Order: sequence, then structure tokens, then C-alpha cells
Amino acid sequence: MSKLTDVPKRILIGRALRSDNLGETLLPKRIALPVFASDPLSSVAYAPGEVLLVLSIAGVSAYHFSPWIALAVVVLMFTVVASYRQNVRAYPSGGGDYEVATTNLGPKAGLTVASALLVDYVLTVAVSISSGVENLGSAVPFVVEHKVPVAIGAIVLLTLMNLRGVKESGKLFAIPTYLFVVGVFLMIMWGAYRGLVLGDTMHAPTSDLEIKPEHQGLAGFALVFLLLRAFSSGCAALTGVEAISNGVPAFRKPKSKNAATTLAMMGLLAVTMFCGIIGLAMATDVKMAENPAKDLLRDGAAVGGSFVQDPVISQVAAAVFGDGTFLFVLLAAATALVLFLAANTAYNGFPLLGSILAQDRYLPRQLHTRGDRLAFSNGIVLLAGAAVLLVWIYGADSTKLIQLYIVGVFVSFTLSQTGMVRHWNRHLRTEKDPAARRHMIRSRAINTFGAFFTGLVLVVVLATKFTHGAWVALLGMVLFYGTMTAIRRHYDRVAEEIAADETPSDEAGRPSRVHSIVLVSKLHRPTLRALAYAKLIRSDRLEALSISVDPQETKVLKEEWERRGINVPLKILDSPYREVTRPVIDYVKGLRRESPRDVVSVYIPEYVVGHWYEHLLHNQSALRLKGRLLFTPGVMVTSVPYQLESSEAAKKRARRRAEWNAPGSVRRGPVERKPKEPTGKG
Amino acid sequence: MSKLTDVPKRILIGRALRSDNLGETLLPKRIALPVFASDPLSSVAYAPGEVLLVLSIAGVSAYHFSPWIALAVVVLMFTVVASYRQNVRAYPSGGGDYEVATTNLGPKAGLTVASALLVDYVLTVAVSISSGVENLGSAVPFVVEHKVPVAIGAIVLLTLMNLRGVKESGKLFAIPTYLFVVGVFLMIMWGAYRGLVLGDTMHAPTSDLEIKPEHQGLAGFALVFLLLRAFSSGCAALTGVEAISNGVPAFRKPKSKNAATTLAMMGLLAVTMFCGIIGLAMATDVKMAENPAKDLLRDGAAVGGSFVQDPVISQVAAAVFGDGTFLFVLLAAATALVLFLAANTAYNGFPLLGSILAQDRYLPRQLHTRGDRLAFSNGIVLLAGAAVLLVWIYGADSTKLIQLYIVGVFVSFTLSQTGMVRHWNRHLRTEKDPAARRHMIRSRAINTFGAFFTGLVLVVVLATKFTHGAWVALLGMVLFYGTMTAIRRHYDRVAEEIAADETPSDEAGRPSRVHSIVLVSKLHRPTLRALAYAKLIRSDRLEALSISVDPQETKVLKEEWERRGINVPLKILDSPYREVTRPVIDYVKGLRRESPRDVVSVYIPEYVVGHWYEHLLHNQSALRLKGRLLFTPGVMVTSVPYQLESSEAAKKRARRRAEWNAPGSVRRGPVERKPKEPTGKG
Repeated sequence: MSKLTDVPKRILIGRALRSDNLGETLLPKRIALPVFASDPLSSVAYAPGEVLLVLSIAGVSAYHFSPWIALAVVVLMFTVVASYRQNVRAYPSGGGDYEVATTNLGPKAGLTVASALLVDYVLTVAVSISSGVENLGSAVPFVVEHKVPVAIGAIVLLTLMNLRGVKESGKLFAIPTYLFVVGVFLMIMWGAYRGLVLGDTMHAPTSDLEIKPEHQGLAGFALVFLLLRAFSSGCAALTGVEAISNGVPAFRKPKSKNAATTLAMMGLLAVTMFCGIIGLAMATDVKMAENPAKDLLRDGAAVGGSFVQDPVISQVAAAVFGDGTFLFVLLAAATALVLFLAANTAYNGFPLLGSILAQDRYLPRQLHTRGDRLAFSNGIVLLAGAAVLLVWIYGADSTKLIQLYIVGVFVSFTLSQTGMVRHWNRHLRTEKDPAARRHMIRSRAINTFGAFFTGLVLVVVLATKFTHGAWVALLGMVLFYGTMTAIRRHYDRVAEEIAADETPSDEAGRPSRVHSIVLVSKLHRPTLRALAYAKLIRSDRLEALSISVDPQETKVLKEEWERRGINVPLKILDSPYREVTRPVIDYVKGLRRESPRDVVSVYIPEYVVGHWYEHLLHNQSALRLKGRLLFTPGVMVTSVPYQLESSEAAKKRARRRAEWNAPGSVRRGPVERKPKEPTGKG
Repeated sequence: MSKLTDVPKRILIGRALRSDNLGETLLPKRIALPVFASDPLSSVAYAPGEVLLVLSIAGVSAYHFSPWIALAVVVLMFTVVASYRQNVRAYPSGGGDYEVATTNLGPKAGLTVASALLVDYVLTVAVSISSGVENLGSAVPFVVEHKVPVAIGAIVLLTLMNLRGVKESGKLFAIPTYLFVVGVFLMIMWGAYRGLVLGDTMHAPTSDLEIKPEHQGLAGFALVFLLLRAFSSGCAALTGVEAISNGVPAFRKPKSKNAATTLAMMGLLAVTMFCGIIGLAMATDVKMAENPAKDLLRDGAAVGGSFVQDPVISQVAAAVFGDGTFLFVLLAAATALVLFLAANTAYNGFPLLGSILAQDRYLPRQLHTRGDRLAFSNGIVLLAGAAVLLVWIYGADSTKLIQLYIVGVFVSFTLSQTGMVRHWNRHLRTEKDPAARRHMIRSRAINTFGAFFTGLVLVVVLATKFTHGAWVALLGMVLFYGTMTAIRRHYDRVAEEIAADETPSDEAGRPSRVHSIVLVSKLHRPTLRALAYAKLIRSDRLEALSISVDPQETKVLKEEWERRGINVPLKILDSPYREVTRPVIDYVKGLRRESPRDVVSVYIPEYVVGHWYEHLLHNQSALRLKGRLLFTPGVMVTSVPYQLESSEAAKKRARRRAEWNAPGSVRRGPVERKPKEPTGKG
């Protein structure tokens, strides 16, 4: 508000960059890594367990396939990381998969990717929170005993934090993420040292259990199918890898190079942790089962419903560090924390994607305002509501939720990589420089392999998981796709309807004169102000209009009108039903009928109040009248505001709201300076 | 809509009376009786039982006090009827107790009466529906087995019917009410004939039960207190008597006389039915207990929780007509129906009282519109919500709910009668005519006795029922009173704030010039219309303002602006955050700072749409901008509407809404023709 003096300057040179968006907020790699990697890294907290869990269907003997499945996941991870390194180089604007797919494959592919990503954000919240609760529960039994309420409570807490607009900072991400990474590496190294050097035999809490295979002696196609299912469960480790491609503008320069490097680091960390945990799980004889209550046996008897199957990472930590030790609890806490951070990333990504979709008119137009609080709030309430629903339906069971999770990720991977292949093809058509061409051909090869591999995984995921829950995710995508298509169609139809004709005289019968009407109830300051303003604007005819709902009040009004010598004619309409709207509408319609080419301008004094409940006490009749008047062609409605003293409170609130920063700005980077536009022609 | 041609005539002579409000809708006595008496007459369905129920505390021997209690109720009924006959003569305008108390005892007494009546309306719904369900349940066991859901379902159904605006007709009331009255009289006469003439011994279903007295051998003060409690329970028969005093305008002429006659008829019917049912209950050995499960004994053992205590009226009907006979079922159905009608009267009275209170600025001003659908809807949703809450909390148990009921009734009786005494005192001071004085003195005597008697009953009710639930009703009254006082205080404060000074120059620094700004996003029809209108109104300076959120779009806009040769200067403000609101606000504030005495007039093209969901897709930015602009002093905001094709749907809906008639109009009578006002001075 202190900057009002430099308005003329600002009008000339455009809005000044806000200080919080200057260079210093750009992320160095050591901060960018935790900001973007909390999501993909946190998935090693649940992905290894999912692999063992599926393998257990064929009995514990199938566990020896797990290194091969881990290897397949590692190859896939390297493929995806290598592919996305091409994306961040080719599309440094941060549009991500949606932009790549839309640009190269057309709007339908783009919208498919967007739908998949929106579903994925919901599942990121549901899966991460559920898994976080399970990890926390391995150290704090209370939590796992009240899993669903705790998980829903965590979502509500995250939602409130984000609605309040807690300012994100790189540090907030750095500490838990590095703590988690260091903890896992410490565990892997200490486990390797104890096992390989000291020769200790470490035992996970479930090492003494036996698994009752659901299908004994699987072989042939059935075994292959089971292995593919285990592999597609392991692919949960890849969720969130694409996040960096949305965040290139937040990196320090050289942006693309730094983003690519961070992506590589993240991939390396993820596969090491994933393999290390699987390895330790094998070494410590972890047993996981899909239905632990009946498929895990202790001394030949099922462990029963009271048994809690802890996540692999915490079982391994119990074996390596010892159950309940300081390091065990610390790792459990860090794991839970990094999973909650992963959930939080969805709270930033969901409204951001929404704003991009709004720009393309797939979502309500007003959402496109960057950092708009209301749009942001609607987005995160929708996100949180859907996540709570899923958590509630699936009992906060991360294993069940993961069945829904991976489809969307691989839909966007596949379409994005396919788009990149087209991208290079298009550029190769025009590029002459042999060095650049070589580079492009190499990139195209990587993306082609990426598209092929992720597409294959998508087919595997669909085939192995469709009945297990993937159909729910697909249904969600279809709903988003349908809604967005309908919105876009509506906007297109309206745009066509309101398109201006080439001849400027598109208003049938150009308006000729203005008949101004000031609505008057009593002679108080708001009325006097409205009269003064209406007089200032020189219309062809000006009159005051009052609806008589009480003869006594009308008499007082007329007397005062004359006493004050107000030189505007006062017209009074009788209203036996004490209605206000109908007599005015009828009168205005009558005027329009008399002289159809006139425009009627209605001035309504409006109270500006400070509290929501005051709205119930003021302006309701005015609002309703305005609502009705708008349907009458050839009418303008002018609000002449009168600021009541209480409006100061609302003014301050509005100012605070305007100064609000949307969470997630740290990963979005500063606003791009647009090429300067010469301003104004007048 | 076909009447648009006679607008000039209507402006001259005022609004024509609608046909549905002409003389023929005035009520003859034979229709007025059921319309107004369904509430008081229906209370004989529960009042006799309440008397027996309280007496049973002292054992079945205390039942022999019941004729004396019935006598006291009869005396009270005659007193109240005689008193209200004075009211309807003195206040034929239909203001009822609120008007009488406010006029004669001041606004605080009036507001107390209003609070009591509002609470009473809620309880009328809760008690009548609960009792109706119990009566229906005596014929249809399913209903009583699911008492709470059935009662809540009935309230919801009534609410929906009233929200839809089902048109009330006298017949709707007449058939069930006369059926009920005829049925009860038939029962009394047939019972008397069988008992006295044929000498039959009739047995109620509970005649073979014994009552375990909670207090054996009560005497002295304790017995008196119990008898007073039984009496105050019997006073439930008086609820609703005051309704006629609100409805005098609905009667045919001579209004007051007809209303007084109807009142007398109603009183006579009520006491006859009340006494007849008590008498039959004695003759057929009905046993009622407060806690039937443990205090009713069959062969010495408590009947237990599965026992359903049917209402006295249905027990008597079973004894007289025989259980399950056609007449028994018919009477049960008529009783339930008349009780539902009684509940329905509250749906009419509550919003009507609300509109009167709104006129006196105790409730939001817009509620005063007679028959305003929105206000009406809010009122009945509030009423239904409170009634559902009570039914749910008290398990749809009419006995428990009646404890809350009678306080409010007697608060308004007492204050109204006290007010009437003052009324006569005041008139006696000026009246000279001896005949008129005699009449007034007689009326004063009646009202004095009424005030004294009802005041005494109020004390008895408070003393005997406070801990049994009357405190809840008092709390409700305090809440209503407090809220309405706060609203009135707010309106008074605002009225003071906006009162116009005597010198006409109350706008600090009279505005000198108008600077008009047309907001432009694209060059489509809505924009062109807004430009055309703004040009038509001759302001001192006119410019178009566009916020550049996308350089490409801005470029297109500027090119088209020039190509079309629009002779209004176009100013473009840069908005890197894609915000619209802030740049406009800052620009307007800058203008105001440059020339503080100028008025800024902002024209916003607004889309008029037809469906609620389209609102989510349009105008949101405009609305928010408008909301912010109103806080800036010296700014007017003009909406230039553009009616999209889809707005036709909303127009039709609005028309339908405007033609809606509020239920309850039948009992309110036609609109009073106000003395003709000369209209217009211009």
C-alpha cells in the first residue's frame, strides 16, 4: 500500500518483481534434490514390501525371484530417468508431461495425461499417508491400532496447513529427506558390515514365521503372471520421478543441466535404497503375505487378525539396529516424515496443474490466476476430500491403495515419452547441424526405448492389476477427462456465441439514449452519494425511484425530498406485498417497451460491510434485484458503494489475502518475465 | 407478463390487486374454524393423557382428582377464550400477541412474546408430529416401532411440501378437522350410550394393569404440587388458542365479530372433547404411567420395555369402538392427520412472525417482503431443523416434549393480557361515552382476570416443570431474544452512521468529474456492448483497460482494437502473476490519488447464465474484482450484462419463482389496501 506513489511508473514498466521471487529463491541442487525427491525416494518405504508380498502368493520359495525383480525395477528406473533427462532439456519451461503430450500428440493425449496426473496426485496423498501411518505405527503401536482415523487426521492436518498457506522452504524438505536417506544408507551399510564382516545372523521380527502359499507350485504362465505382478508392484518405486520435469524453472542456472543432474542423483539414490532394502530383507528372512492373518503361520497355526504386518523397511531396521533402539525409532520417524512430505507435494502439484488446465480452458477460467487463494483452496479441498474417501474405503491399507496407484503414472510416462519421440522427429526434419543431429538422434533413441519400456509396463500393470483396483483409477481418469472436456466444450460454445461480428454494428439497434434511475429507500448518506454520482454522469434522463412498502415511510421520504430541494424527480411505486424486486422490474420493462433503443441505467446504493454475518443483514434485496435486472436486456446496474465503518475489518482481511503466497512456490520457481509489451496506445 | 401494456396505468394507480386476494378468499366461519382450530383442537389428543400420567405418580387412587383438574382446565380455557375475544375486537389488524405486547408494554415485552412464540412454533411441530406418530402407531405398529425416523420423516415431508409452496386451501383443513371432531363426539356419545344406557362395562387395553405409585400416600404440600403439575400438563390443551388473534384479517366481515364467535366455538368444542375423553378414560379404567415399562404391573410384574403405552384417545376408542374396528382405525387416522395439520400451522406462523419482526428490524430486513420465497425458505428450514433436533434428542416422546411446550404459550398469554389491561386503561382515560366506557370496563375486567389467571398458571408451570424441561424452552427464548436484540442494535448503529447531515454537502469534497474505465479481456460482443454503453453515458474521461496475462492474447487484442478503429484509448497493464484484481485496484487507487475529487466508474461486462454450474465457469474474476473495488472509496461499479442463450432457462425459473405464493396465505387474509398515495412528483 506504500507503493501507491509509483503507480505511473509501474504502469509504464509493468509490475515490479516481488522480492520473494528474485534470484535468491532459485534452488541449488542440494536443496532441489530433497524438494523434488521426497516423493520418489519415499516410495522405497513401501515398494520393496509390495514385491515380497506378491511373491509370497507362490510361497516363500518364490522370494528367490526378488533380486531379478529388483533388477528389472532398476533397469526401468534408469530408463525413465534417462528419458526424463531428455524432457527437462527439451522443455525447460516446466510444463511437464501435460505440455509434452499436448504439444506433440495433440490435446486429447494431453488431457489424458492431465487426467492421469490428477488421479495420481490423489493417490500420492492416500498412499503416502497410509504408508506413513504404517511406518510410524511400527514404532508407536497406538497409531497402527487406529489407522484410519490417524490417517484421515493427518490428511486434515496437511490440508489445514496448506489452506493456511504455510510458507514452504527448501530446508523444510532437506532435513527429513536427508535424514531418511542417511538413515537408510546407514542401515544398509551397518547391515552389510554385520552380515558380511562380523558374520552375524540378523533376524527380522517375522523371520520365524512360515508362509502358507495361496497357490502351491505355480509354474508356466501362472508363475510368469505372478512375477509380472510382483514387478508391477515394485514399479511403485517410480512414482514421482516426473516431478522434476515440472520444476525446471525453480533450478539455478544452467537450469536444464542442473535439473538433469538432480534427476540422475535421485535415480541413483532410489535404486540403491530399493536394492539395499530388498537385499537386507532377504538376508534377515523377512516374511510378508497378502493376507497376513491367515497366510502367515507361527508353529503351523495362522497368526490371526491381531497380527500387524510391519513394513519391510521397519522390519529390516529392527533386525539391523534392534527393535525399539534409538536408531530404529529415528528411522521410523524419518520415514513417516518423508512420506508426509511426499503427500504434501501433491498439495502443491494439484492446484498448479489445475491452473495450467484452466489456462487451456479445461477448468474454470479463474483458476488460472497463479497463487489465487480461492482457486487454490478449492483445489486442495477437492484433493483432500478424494484422498480421505480412498483412505476410508480402503481402510488406510497402503497395499490395497498401491493397486490403484501405478496406472496413472505409467499412462503419463508412456504418453510423455511417445511425445518426446515425435518432438525429436519434428526437429530432425529441420536441423542441419550434424553435431546437433547426432545429439537429437541419441535423445530420440533414449525416448523411444523409454516409451516402449514404460508402455510395456503399462500393459503389464493393466493386465495384472485391473481387477485388483486399477479400474478405480481408470474410472477416476475417465471422470476427470469427461468433466474437463465438457467444460472446454462449454467455453468454446460461449466463445462462438459472443464472438463479435466483423461489422461493428452488431448491437441490433444501437442504443440511443440513457435513462438513469436511482433506487431510493430512505434519504441517508448512501442515497445522497448515489444521487450525487448519478447526477455527475450526464444521462439523458434521471429520476429517483422508491418502492412504497409503508405509507408512513413514503410520506416522510417525500417531505424530506422537498425540504432538501433535491432537483431530481422522485417516482414512487406502490407495493402492497412489500416486494421490491417485482415493481422495479416491471417499471424498467415498461420503459424499455416504450423506447426499446434506450438503455436503462439503474443505480443501487450498496453497503460495504466487514463481516460475513452483516451480509445477511444488508444488501440482500439489492442483490436479488440486481440478479433479476441482469436478465432484462438493455439494462446496466451500477453499485454505488457506501463503506460502513465495519468495512475496515474486511479491507484489512482482503489486503492480507492479497499478500498471501500459495504454498508450492518454491518448486515452481519465479515468474518468467514476459517479453516487454509497449503499454497503452492512448 | 401479458400485463406489460398497462404499466403506465399501474404506475398511476398503483399495483392491481391480484385476483387470488379478492374478497372470495376471505374465510366464512365454517372454514375459519378448522383452519385456525386444528392446532388447539388437536391438543385434546395428548392433553388428557398427560393429566393421568402425572397423577399416576401418586398411584391410581389419585386418578379421582382428574375431574377437578379437568374443571380447572375448562375454567382456564373459558378465561383465555374470553380474554382473546377482547383482543380480536381491539386489534383487528392481526398483529396478535406481539403487537399487543409491543404497543402496550413496550418493545422489550414485545420481543419477549416474539421469542416465546418462535420457540412455541418449534415445539408445535415437535409435539404435534410426535403425538401424531404415537396415534398413528396405535393402529399401525410399524410406525411406533420406528418412532424417531418416522417422526423425522414426517417433518422432512412437511418441510418439502412447504418449500415447494403447496397451495393451502380451507378444504384441506376442513375435512380432517371435522372428521376428527365428529369422530371424537361420536366416540363420546357412543361411549356414554353404552355406559349409561346399555350399562356395558367397557375396558381399555390397560384396564387390567396396576400402577406402581412412585410416591405412596402423597399428602399436604407434595400432593398439592403434584396436582398443580397435573394441571399444568393439562394446560397443553390451550396451546394454539391465540392463533385466531393473528388471523382476524382473513375472516369475512364483520371480521372481529366473526373471529370472536369462531373463538368461542373453538373453546366450546375443545373443552367438551377434553372433558369427554377424560370421562371416558375414567369409565374405561385407562392406566397411564410416566415410566410405563417399570411402573405398570401386569399380575404384579412390570410390563417391561417392550410395552407400548398408547395415547388415551386411542385406548378409549379401543374400549368404545373395539380395537382394530373400522371406526377405531378411522379415528386414529383422523387424529394423526389433524396433528400433522397442527404441525403445518407452525410452518405458516413462523415465517409470518419472522416477517413482522423483520419490519421492526429484529430480523434481517429482506425477510419483511410478504411471501418472499427465499426468506420463507430460510424460516421453515430453521424451524424444521430445530424441530428435528428436539424430536431426535427426546426420542419423539410427546410426553417429554410437552414439558417444554407450555412455558412459551403462557408467557405470551400473560404478557398479551397484561398489555390489554393497559390498552383499556389508556382508552378509558380519553373515552367519554358512558356505553363505550361500560364496555371497556367489562373488557378490562375480563383481561385483568385473564392476565392474573394465565400469570398464575405461568408461575405454576415454571415451578412444576422447570427441571423437567421447561428450562430448555426458556434457553431457546433467551437465544432468540439475544439474537434479535443484537440485530436490532446493529441496524440502529448503521442507521445512525448513515444518517444524512442537514447541510446537503455531506460528501466530503463534492465529486467533480467522472473517469470511466471499461474492463476488456477480449473483443467480443459483451465487451463491445459495454463500450457502447459507456460511450453513451457522457463521462469526463473514458478509457478501456486490459490486464495482460498472456502477451500473445494482448497482441491480438491490440491489433483488433486498431483494425476496428475503436475510438476509446486502450490501456494495458502487465500482470506477471496472471492476477486481474490487484493491477486494476492499484490502477484505480492511483487515479484516485492523482485527483481525489474524481469519481471512478468501472464498467464490467458480465455474463448472464442459466445454470448454477455455469456460474462456476463465468464471472468469478469479475465478481471478485467487484468485491474488492467496493472497498475503494469514490468508485462505482457498473455491470453491463450480456445474456447468454442459456440464460433463458434461468429467466423462466425466476418468473416461476416470482409467481409463487407463500403457503399460509389463507390464514393471513388479503393484503390491506393502504390509503392511496399520490404517486410521483415529477
